[in-house]
Amino acid sequence: MSPFAALWPTLLDVGRHPRTGGYRRYAWTDVDLTLREWFTDCARRRGMDTEEDRNGNLWAWWLPPGWTGDPRGAFVTGSHLDSVPDGGAFDGPLGVVSGFAAVDLARERGVVPSVPVGVVAFSDEEGARFGVACAGSRLSAGTLAPERALALRDHDGHTLAEALTRAGRDPAALGPDPALRERVGVFVELHVEQGRALGPVGQPLAIGSAIWPHGRWRFSFTGEANHAGTTRMADRRDPMLTYALAVFAARQSAERHRAVATFGRVRVEPNGTNAIASDVYAWLDARAPSEEVLASLLEDITTEAKAHAGSDGTFVDIAAESRSPVVEFPAEPRQRLRRVLGDVPELPTAAGHDAGVLSALVPTAMLFVRNPTGVSHSPAEHAEEADCEHGARALADVLADWVTA
Amino acid sequence: MSPFAALWPTLLDVGRHPRTGGYRRYAWTDVDLTLREWFTDCARRRGMDTEEDRNGNLWAWWLPPGWTGDPRGAFVTGSHLDSVPDGGAFDGPLGVVSGFAAVDLARERGVVPSVPVGVVAFSDEEGARFGVACAGSRLSAGTLAPERALALRDHDGHTLAEALTRAGRDPAALGPDPALRERVGVFVELHVEQGRALGPVGQPLAIGSAIWPHGRWRFSFTGEANHAGTTRMADRRDPMLTYALAVFAARQSAERHRAVATFGRVRVEPNGTNAIASDVYAWLDARAPSEEVLASLLEDITTEAKAHAGSDGTFVDIAAESRSPVVEFPAEPRQRLRRVLGDVPELPTAAGHDAGVLSALVPTAMLFVRNPTGVSHSPAEHAEEADCEHGARALADVLADWVTA
Repeated sequence: MSPFAALWPTLLDVGRHPRTGGYRRYAWTDVDLTLREWFTDCARRRGMDTEEDRNGNLWAWWLPPGWTGDPRGAFVTGSHLDSVPDGGAFDGPLGVVSGFAAVDLARERGVVPSVPVGVVAFSDEEGARFGVACAGSRLSAGTLAPERALALRDHDGHTLAEALTRAGRDPAALGPDPALRERVGVFVELHVEQGRALGPVGQPLAIGSAIWPHGRWRFSFTGEANHAGTTRMADRRDPMLTYALAVFAARQSAERHRAVATFGRVRVEPNGTNAIASDVYAWLDARAPSEEVLASLLEDITTEAKAHAGSDGTFVDIAAESRSPVVEFPAEPRQRLRRVLGDVPELPTAAGHDAGVLSALVPTAMLFVRNPTGVSHSPAEHAEEADCEHGARALADVLADWVTA
Repeated sequence: MSPFAALWPTLLDVGRHPRTGGYRRYAWTDVDLTLREWFTDCARRRGMDTEEDRNGNLWAWWLPPGWTGDPRGAFVTGSHLDSVPDGGAFDGPLGVVSGFAAVDLARERGVVPSVPVGVVAFSDEEGARFGVACAGSRLSAGTLAPERALALRDHDGHTLAEALTRAGRDPAALGPDPALRERVGVFVELHVEQGRALGPVGQPLAIGSAIWPHGRWRFSFTGEANHAGTTRMADRRDPMLTYALAVFAARQSAERHRAVATFGRVRVEPNGTNAIASDVYAWLDARAPSEEVLASLLEDITTEAKAHAGSDGTFVDIAAESRSPVVEFPAEPRQRLRRVLGDVPELPTAAGHDAGVLSALVPTAMLFVRNPTGVSHSPAEHAEEADCEHGARALADVLADWVTA
């Protein structure tokens, strides 16, 4: 049995919801702690030392013979283990499992590394619980302030600080990781394709070219709670109406700009069948091919929402929760991947990744494994096992090339 | 101190949310059990026997001297103690407190009843927890089937049957109350005005003329969960968009029909910031001056929602959760109230009430106490203490007239 085939099934039961079949792997929950044990166990079985850094990111190290001191200039691969609500099995874990499988394959081939090899699992990539994506890598890269992160709240009102304490971690430890730049020589993140570009061209693998700029904004629509039966339509200040028009505006504006804009998360107060809402909180996820287009998109949606609020007698407040600039993966590691992997297509992605966050500090690259349906962030997300095996072997090729050069 | 002024403050702390100032008094929760103890205690202090009927409705009895056997042909007043999420202090409790206060006032005046006097608190009037309004009175009237009621689920997935068991009640007891028709000679429900008709005409009190027909429908919008970043707008089957257009259609249609239609409660799956929703569940509350207008209103909204679903690649399923026909309060008790109370305006209401449910079985009437702002189902709901006192005295007048005639 291949290293990938042996390892992949060991994760499949963790955090899977019995009714939906989707994964609910949220940062610092019991499920997350189980995933962390799984990671540490994988490393232990391979004789790799593990560490959890100050921001909860997990690192497993395969050091060159006779290496002393901390890892430096390492070839690092990996991804994340957490999920969106009812996410699929592949988004994140495929990169971590492929990382360990690539180590196994390289060892089977007798590779002896001249620089350290690391497998990493970044903490809270999806931001499903606390609303900020790539929290672990951003904290380490210094692009998310620890005091802001610690004050983030989950749906139940618990702060990240409280969740860390409950999980036995020290909230005061959070902050930039000054060793990151020296430690990581290159970071290659393998990820399931999101979207459906590889299927039609008959390719199992792609090299990432760029990540679209994107952001998340929290829209707070405020009106006045009132009785749904006795309040005339003309007397209402109903934030649900303003929200509905914002959803429509986002759709139209995204189509016009050839970008994407989504309201997928909503919270309503008081959320009673016979009460006009007092507040509708909704989160906009927007991404575009360039910074300029993203700015126009947001401006259009904001302008429309405010105009509707004016006529509906409601208010709308818009707060940026996260903002990721465009990432062009650097030419150097990309060319080297192409030399090793041969004629492989290059693809941009509109999904954010830890590789995008790290690209500000260290050379990064990405590999995408074909997603035949394009479905992502859903229990129906899928990749064929043969393609996953192909991805793990490609990653082993890249690893072997890098560490023996 | 007047009986009303003495009793009113004793309820104000029960189930009030410290942040919003609104009430969260949901059926069969611990708060509801506290309210039931409050009711029983009020009755005990007045020497009134209490019973909780098979459907959880509470009755307190003041029997004529020498009365034997069960109450028959009684003058019954009261309302309900539960609330919508973050509701006001008056909707429901004002009628129950005024009922006990009217008993006190009648006794102060030396009234000796010739028929039994009952104060009632109907169970789960708002339907905030299980989605069906007037559940207690409907069960007793036989217009809500016990098997349907028992299977209703709250936001956390618990059935009414489970909630009853947890509260120490027997779910198997639920069902029609055959004694109701003989027990109740007339039911007079006093309620805070919802809307703002009395303020402008300078009147503290009105007699109810009719209740608009109304209903609640559950709209299930189904699409496909997918990644908010990587799924092109054209490839989406986003139920949030269809929902938004249904909200807009409801608004427009209600204005056209001079009716009211509200989407105030929403549940989204998976409800993640970076995931296109797979399902949006939303509840429509709609009410109109006549059955014909209500039917047209629902047909318009349904037609629009289905047309949009067709073009959005989503599905919409619409299920009636409750349906209340128009109620014209009968002429007889209404004329008697007018004779006792003098020149009092008559008002229709678009809010449902237990009095409406009972009107199919027994003579019913309603009194409305002025709401100066018209705000209802909100922490800001208000009635002036002088108007509440006036209402309690009017109710005592009506009671005394009825039971000594």
